[in-house]
Amino acid sequence: MNNPFFKNYGPFKIIDLLKDLGLEDYQKFTDHLVYDISDLDNADNTHLTFFHSKKYHSAASKTKASYCVTLKNLSNYLPISCKPICVDNVLSVVSKITSKFYPHAINDNFDSSVKKIEELSLNDNIKYGKNILIGNNVEIGKNCLIGHNTIIEKNVKIGSSCSIGSNVIIRNTVIEDNVSILDGCVIGKKGFGFFPNKLKNLRYPHIGIVIVGENSEIGCGSTIDRGSMSNTVIGTNTYLDNQIHVAHNVKIGNNTIIAGQVGIAGSSIIGNNVKIGGQAGISGHLRIGNNVDIAGGSGVIRSIPDNTKVMGYPAKNIREFLKNNR
Amino acid sequence: MNNPFFKNYGPFKIIDLLKDLGLEDYQKFTDHLVYDISDLDNADNTHLTFFHSKKYHSAASKTKASYCVTLKNLSNYLPISCKPICVDNVLSVVSKITSKFYPHAINDNFDSSVKKIEELSLNDNIKYGKNILIGNNVEIGKNCLIGHNTIIEKNVKIGSSCSIGSNVIIRNTVIEDNVSILDGCVIGKKGFGFFPNKLKNLRYPHIGIVIVGENSEIGCGSTIDRGSMSNTVIGTNTYLDNQIHVAHNVKIGNNTIIAGQVGIAGSSIIGNNVKIGGQAGISGHLRIGNNVDIAGGSGVIRSIPDNTKVMGYPAKNIREFLKNNR
Amino acid sequence: MNNPFFKNYGPFKIIDLLKDLGLEDYQKFTDHLVYDISDLDNADNTHLTFFHSKKYHSAASKTKASYCVTLKNLSNYLPISCKPICVDNVLSVVSKITSKFYPHAINDNFDSSVKKIEELSLNDNIKYGKNILIGNNVEIGKNCLIGHNTIIEKNVKIGSSCSIGSNVIIRNTVIEDNVSILDGCVIGKKGFGFFPNKLKNLRYPHIGIVIVGENSEIGCGSTIDRGSMSNTVIGTNTYLDNQIHVAHNVKIGNNTIIAGQVGIAGSSIIGNNVKIGGQAGISGHLRIGNNVDIAGGSGVIRSIPDNTKVMGYPAKNIREFLKNNR
Repeated sequence: MNNPFFKNYGPFKIIDLLKDLGLEDYQKFTDHLVYDISDLDNADNTHLTFFHSKKYHSAASKTKASYCVTLKNLSNYLPISCKPICVDNVLSVVSKITSKFYPHAINDNFDSSVKKIEELSLNDNIKYGKNILIGNNVEIGKNCLIGHNTIIEKNVKIGSSCSIGSNVIIRNTVIEDNVSILDGCVIGKKGFGFFPNKLKNLRYPHIGIVIVGENSEIGCGSTIDRGSMSNTVIGTNTYLDNQIHVAHNVKIGNNTIIAGQVGIAGSSIIGNNVKIGGQAGISGHLRIGNNVDIAGGSGVIRSIPDNTKVMGYPAKNIREFLKNNR
Repeated sequence: MNNPFFKNYGPFKIIDLLKDLGLEDYQKFTDHLVYDISDLDNADNTHLTFFHSKKYHSAASKTKASYCVTLKNLSNYLPISCKPICVDNVLSVVSKITSKFYPHAINDNFDSSVKKIEELSLNDNIKYGKNILIGNNVEIGKNCLIGHNTIIEKNVKIGSSCSIGSNVIIRNTVIEDNVSILDGCVIGKKGFGFFPNKLKNLRYPHIGIVIVGENSEIGCGSTIDRGSMSNTVIGTNTYLDNQIHVAHNVKIGNNTIIAGQVGIAGSSIIGNNVKIGGQAGISGHLRIGNNVDIAGGSGVIRSIPDNTKVMGYPAKNIREFLKNNR
Repeated sequence: MNNPFFKNYGPFKIIDLLKDLGLEDYQKFTDHLVYDISDLDNADNTHLTFFHSKKYHSAASKTKASYCVTLKNLSNYLPISCKPICVDNVLSVVSKITSKFYPHAINDNFDSSVKKIEELSLNDNIKYGKNILIGNNVEIGKNCLIGHNTIIEKNVKIGSSCSIGSNVIIRNTVIEDNVSILDGCVIGKKGFGFFPNKLKNLRYPHIGIVIVGENSEIGCGSTIDRGSMSNTVIGTNTYLDNQIHVAHNVKIGNNTIIAGQVGIAGSSIIGNNVKIGGQAGISGHLRIGNNVDIAGGSGVIRSIPDNTKVMGYPAKNIREFLKNNR
């Protein structure tokens, strides 16, 4: 994946990666170097990947990765070029391996690298308010406005002519030109992803970033989490109202309009020219087509094809819903 | 409308207003001066108004405005005293004309006029915390409390004995006596109103303000947007819980109680003595009567008469809903 | 109850407590001293308690309190050792009496006792950002991280190895070891509890605190209100996503996972190992068992037994719901 911000501590020898995990048969593996961890689609032959659910069998059969953490009963789907690493809990092992490559992507402790904006040499024509803090590896384009008390932590690139409000927190994010981020947003925080464990849940790294396309607007108090193994993307000319939550790995298309208090769960994909009414919720891992209208308050639990209007919980065809709910 | 805060750059000659918009037949119009833009009800004979949907035909037939931006097929509803300006997209033209009268009401960039509160000479008996910023044209009554990091941007009037929390942002707002605004609220921001356009959405000005009546309370993290062509109003002795979103032009009555995470879409009117349970949502342009009870989680998509209890999505009579949902 | 933070101004003579309330027959009462006000279960014989609804008759019959504010028709449930104080509006009188014991627990005005963190002598190994304010009676354990602009108002105890984000506000709260509080949370504010009154609502004191158990995480922009007469509790190893609202007196168990934008109304009790999907809402005064799964978007209006999966509004057995909503 495109990962401009998190430092990759690899490569590691495959045998060392596995030894540290306490896998029984790690000695079967060589000292071949592994450079990164990627999903099935994006891995190349220097990468390790993972495959934990049969529904990804098609991608698994075509992966270019050299190693794949998987379950014994799924290992036959992999091509010969990809050596299976069979474990009982795929995601937990993946979490641990990813932590080795990207140890700084697990927690979101506050960025102690920040400095007062007055101490930095910024682009011309940036206007800024009071009490602003800026971290390392931050670029801000020309003609930007940055409101009071805003914190731009490390790893942020902001295009030109953007208006950032007050009390905003941004990290690990690329913002394109002419974007408005309104007051009180938190953008680029790690997602709500971890492996439940009765003693102490196991967080996994979030090495994705947030990308906000040009001409878009994010309303007050919204939270947009960065991706775990891919990016969270807001398209161009897409407007979000206040108090919206966009979870990790979500992709939202262009010219889409999302009203207040909507929530979009992890890894769902929303098309172009979509309208989502206030307080609607969209479950994770769904695909919402182009030109879809989702009525306010709907609970979407299945994917929706292009050019469809839905309403209800669970959301269904809007005419059917209204006919049954006079 | 009552607009104490946004500077009106008019009057303009009607012919100049229209010429700049590229309307073909602008030469039909004179150099008669237009002083303001108002809605059908509130316009006087020095104003321009607009009429874009047949459902407003009754108000249109009685408007006192001298000019009205409208559709060709609606123009017959106007009185003889009101000259129609026929266009294809009424709201887009209205947006452009309003921008001429009120160019500073389109964007909500941070207020660079603010100063540290210590630099101002305030009323007696105001107690304030640390890092507080105050903009131009702000009045704060006696015995007020203002919490840490709070930003009161320009155009705010606060009555006496109010308690403003910490991390609050307020602009373009009138707060009456004895109101509590809890931590992290954003009050008076422009509403989520714009004309969708595939290349770049067209924002329109929000020249309304927010008015919060006396003895009311607004819970933590709530957002109350100011109106576009009218005001957003919270009545007296009305209590809002945390994380509530009130959109532009909404009017809420007196003695009303609204629980956490409720959302009220644009231009809806809520009566007195109304109770709204947590997470309920109310669609735009509805009228909720007095003494109405809306159960938590309801999705209200139709207006509700006085003295009614509703529940469900779509919300209906509560007894009927519970009978059908044992 | 366990109340480490609010100063009790008692004891008061019972006759004086009642005289000031304007009760007609206060002269029946003696100058016996009352040391505190508690609920039926927790009162001892130096306390006053209250009993306002028949559903608590079992607890009432066993209370150890010496006095009980109640309704005439409920007074027969009380043991002989407990003298009834019969009034028309129990909760309003309780509010007034509690205000006498705990006058500082009614409003949540900003804490003017705070100092800049640099002015304090803190534990070793605390890392902190910029512009941090700390109130009186605050303890912070070793190896904690505290983000920028965060305000820790009076009466807060934070364990070791906690990570507090930026723009957070905390008061009247105990946080155990190894807890993460993400950006923009407001924790420990008074709950949304008051007695409606047409002229001016009557707030009652919130003398409870918030307790967050070890290894837990609270997502960005969440609000957790402190209790009125008991505490609000988040268990150990329990994770909350962004924009969650937890109302006063709620108790959440251990190893529980709550997704974004969930709201839990006052006094509900959530078990261990519970999973609550995004945007679900839980009404007040319910009991949700252990190992319960609540699907995203559900509206829970009845208690749920252990080991149950529910979905819908109102939430019912998930299989039944899905069968009826194909």
